[in-house]
Amino acid sequence: MSDSQSHPSLNALSGPLVERLVADAQALRLAVSQAPGGARMVDAGSTARGSIEAGRRIAEICMGGLGTVTVVPTGPVASWPYTLTVHSADPVLACLGSQYAGWSLADETGGTGFFALGSGPGRAVAAVEELYGELGYRDTATKTALVLESAGGPPESVVAKVAEASNVRPEDLTFIFAPTQSLAGSTQVVARVLEVALHKAHTVGFDLHAILDGIGSAPLSPPHPDFIKAMGRTNDAIIYGGRVQLFVDADDADAKQLAEQLPSTGSADHGAPFAEIFSRVNGDFYKIDGALFSPAEAIVTSVRTGATFRGGRLEPSLVEASFA
Amino acid sequence: MSDSQSHPSLNALSGPLVERLVADAQALRLAVSQAPGGARMVDAGSTARGSIEAGRRIAEICMGGLGTVTVVPTGPVASWPYTLTVHSADPVLACLGSQYAGWSLADETGGTGFFALGSGPGRAVAAVEELYGELGYRDTATKTALVLESAGGPPESVVAKVAEASNVRPEDLTFIFAPTQSLAGSTQVVARVLEVALHKAHTVGFDLHAILDGIGSAPLSPPHPDFIKAMGRTNDAIIYGGRVQLFVDADDADAKQLAEQLPSTGSADHGAPFAEIFSRVNGDFYKIDGALFSPAEAIVTSVRTGATFRGGRLEPSLVEASFA
Amino acid sequence: MSDSQSHPSLNALSGPLVERLVADAQALRLAVSQAPGGARMVDAGSTARGSIEAGRRIAEICMGGLGTVTVVPTGPVASWPYTLTVHSADPVLACLGSQYAGWSLADETGGTGFFALGSGPGRAVAAVEELYGELGYRDTATKTALVLESAGGPPESVVAKVAEASNVRPEDLTFIFAPTQSLAGSTQVVARVLEVALHKAHTVGFDLHAILDGIGSAPLSPPHPDFIKAMGRTNDAIIYGGRVQLFVDADDADAKQLAEQLPSTGSADHGAPFAEIFSRVNGDFYKIDGALFSPAEAIVTSVRTGATFRGGRLEPSLVEASFA
Repeated sequence: MSDSQSHPSLNALSGPLVERLVADAQALRLAVSQAPGGARMVDAGSTARGSIEAGRRIAEICMGGLGTVTVVPTGPVASWPYTLTVHSADPVLACLGSQYAGWSLADETGGTGFFALGSGPGRAVAAVEELYGELGYRDTATKTALVLESAGGPPESVVAKVAEASNVRPEDLTFIFAPTQSLAGSTQVVARVLEVALHKAHTVGFDLHAILDGIGSAPLSPPHPDFIKAMGRTNDAIIYGGRVQLFVDADDADAKQLAEQLPSTGSADHGAPFAEIFSRVNGDFYKIDGALFSPAEAIVTSVRTGATFRGGRLEPSLVEASFA
Repeated sequence: MSDSQSHPSLNALSGPLVERLVADAQALRLAVSQAPGGARMVDAGSTARGSIEAGRRIAEICMGGLGTVTVVPTGPVASWPYTLTVHSADPVLACLGSQYAGWSLADETGGTGFFALGSGPGRAVAAVEELYGELGYRDTATKTALVLESAGGPPESVVAKVAEASNVRPEDLTFIFAPTQSLAGSTQVVARVLEVALHKAHTVGFDLHAILDGIGSAPLSPPHPDFIKAMGRTNDAIIYGGRVQLFVDADDADAKQLAEQLPSTGSADHGAPFAEIFSRVNGDFYKIDGALFSPAEAIVTSVRTGATFRGGRLEPSLVEASFA
Repeated sequence: MSDSQSHPSLNALSGPLVERLVADAQALRLAVSQAPGGARMVDAGSTARGSIEAGRRIAEICMGGLGTVTVVPTGPVASWPYTLTVHSADPVLACLGSQYAGWSLADETGGTGFFALGSGPGRAVAAVEELYGELGYRDTATKTALVLESAGGPPESVVAKVAEASNVRPEDLTFIFAPTQSLAGSTQVVARVLEVALHKAHTVGFDLHAILDGIGSAPLSPPHPDFIKAMGRTNDAIIYGGRVQLFVDADDADAKQLAEQLPSTGSADHGAPFAEIFSRVNGDFYKIDGALFSPAEAIVTSVRTGATFRGGRLEPSLVEASFA
């Protein structure tokens, strides 16, 4: 992926989606405003009510316009039939180059204590993360957007930091935010089912160039007003109810190993609802085994050999315990 | 919902969908004509052949552009796999404010004996129904559309009545009609699975402001040339094969009660194919228990507490008996 | 179907889809080039990598813009959950008039040995096949596209032949090609699940005018690098994993007979993976019973009588044996 010339512009593809989100704000129950720093703020679930459809569209923006997210009425968890499907013809760029919440945005000037992880096409413009070196990709854009799983929009200092890192004027930045507890927030997080698979593939050292196509699905998780429980449910939707199929250009040994390493079943922490695991480690996120953050089931097809390998298994009863 | 300022215009959203329906008339097997009164008539299943896709699009027009209707290849009734999914980020306005067939359109000048119930965004412009007072919504539009589950278009007197009540010129009115017996007609009626849930919620006195989001699904019912049987099948698709999930901002007691009251299982008439019930009451619609008109199964999630409540159950064998 | 006036232009409907495919070439991993003869070539899986989404869009182009193809996350074959749904409001024109690979394109000038079967809206412009007489349809267009299940684009002689037969300048022709072994290729072939049903209906002499609407589905088949195995899998996806529902204006006897004749179960060759059957006849395609090429299961609904008839059955274990 060293030849960034052969890659599309995440912002050229997602820019129109951002404008349509804003144009449809009333129908989607969003509140759009101009922040003091001049940036555009789209509240999708904090003071605004938001919606599942807003979350679905935000997820497509998060994927830089390189993926589709749809809602279907049946899935493998019988009692939670409504299911998200996520599909990308370029999962590495869509998920790691854009959707992954990898840009740490803290208010370093003090005051607000604001902290959020930025995701979406704005990451590829700033490209402050090491990952972009590996991807060999940077998007030059004069207008961009970031998505925040957050209860509020960023303060002026964070807007300024993003503007500077991106070389984009604050008035050309759009921040879309929704707390995990909201309809849009929970939807856009569950829509990360394919992204966490890509992240896991990266973590276990699988050659990213070899990942050609990917589809994933996970049940829509019901929002919960408590942050820990809301976060627990979105994670459980993926960890115990998520499934992905990756198409890779790799030999059988590598494809097989990926199928075995990918699923959450390989984690020592597998087996309890996420909120329980979280409280077990006294809320110290970094004590949770990173291997847990991946779909329950992986299907890996090698287009080089035609063989398909499988790993993990869905755990509908754990999804039910979490969502109940 | 008293602040109509915060609501989108149903006609601004659905107007482009109406124009696309007309532009695609040949592909969708529709006949478009100008009626004597000057109004535009779209025949989607009377003398024109129509199609399931036409019905799907008419359903989205019915929802005032505030919802999506999709066809998927699997659902909970195994022998009738093709299933409609209906989703709205604003189910109260989409379903009650637009899709509900609430405007009684009779030819009062005598002659034709025409009678149909009008649904769609035109209802919100005329706003002659009491419901609009409750919703606190009225849409000002200079161009609008009504959908009729009817074997023919309305006569001139009905066009004039609609034009007057809406303060819209006849030539700016579009009437889209399809009989229940047609492909488009049966499709757009089954797509009311979410609407009947909203109507039932309203009937049992649930606070409409508290309904935030909704998804529903029901099997596509096969058309029948006999009106009673066709109507029976579309009703059975919903009553015995329909499922909805509502997301409400309510406490547990109210959410639980809604889940229990919503499904058709609570009706004394539950248990027989609709056409049989209809003949049992000698075709007197108003002798049928109103509580029957709702989905078979309800899932109600309180976003205030995070709890989910369930009521009713699907009855695949009754769907099969009806569709056979 | 003698009145071609009442039919839409396949090329007017699909032209914009072709332009969007080309505009999104980078995102879909396609290579677009100008061939020596002046025609536009879209490589969707030969030297270009392609994608499932490209195959999905190519399938919609193949149907002349008269159908939709979607990817959903569940279907009747449990271990191969990702499934294509194909739907058309005009299946005869979409599938037989456009999608069917009926135009034999051989390099008759010698040299290259190129051979491919052309499918898509360009067939209806040339209308060299007898079928168009039966359909009573011909599309006059000055710009058109053909889809080839092929490892390479056509040589100049074939471009010239198509240009002449279509009376379209070479520079106004687009050839979209992908080998069966590729992601896009296998996707667009499995998306023929409805088309093979239409073709079978035609073969058994069912009145095409009576076919009003159709939906089909089949599991996405995993690509295989070996041509025979790749072709075997795409065929097995349909023959053992495919399902269609047709809506016909016919009496019960005809609808029942169609349901019985349509499925692959009626073929003497039914019961083994396609690649095995193919090697059994030493690769002589024409020794395979033509009746095998159809979906596993057929549901035929008569809109004239309201009755539904069924034939065939899915064979998930044969799909699994083929895809493994």
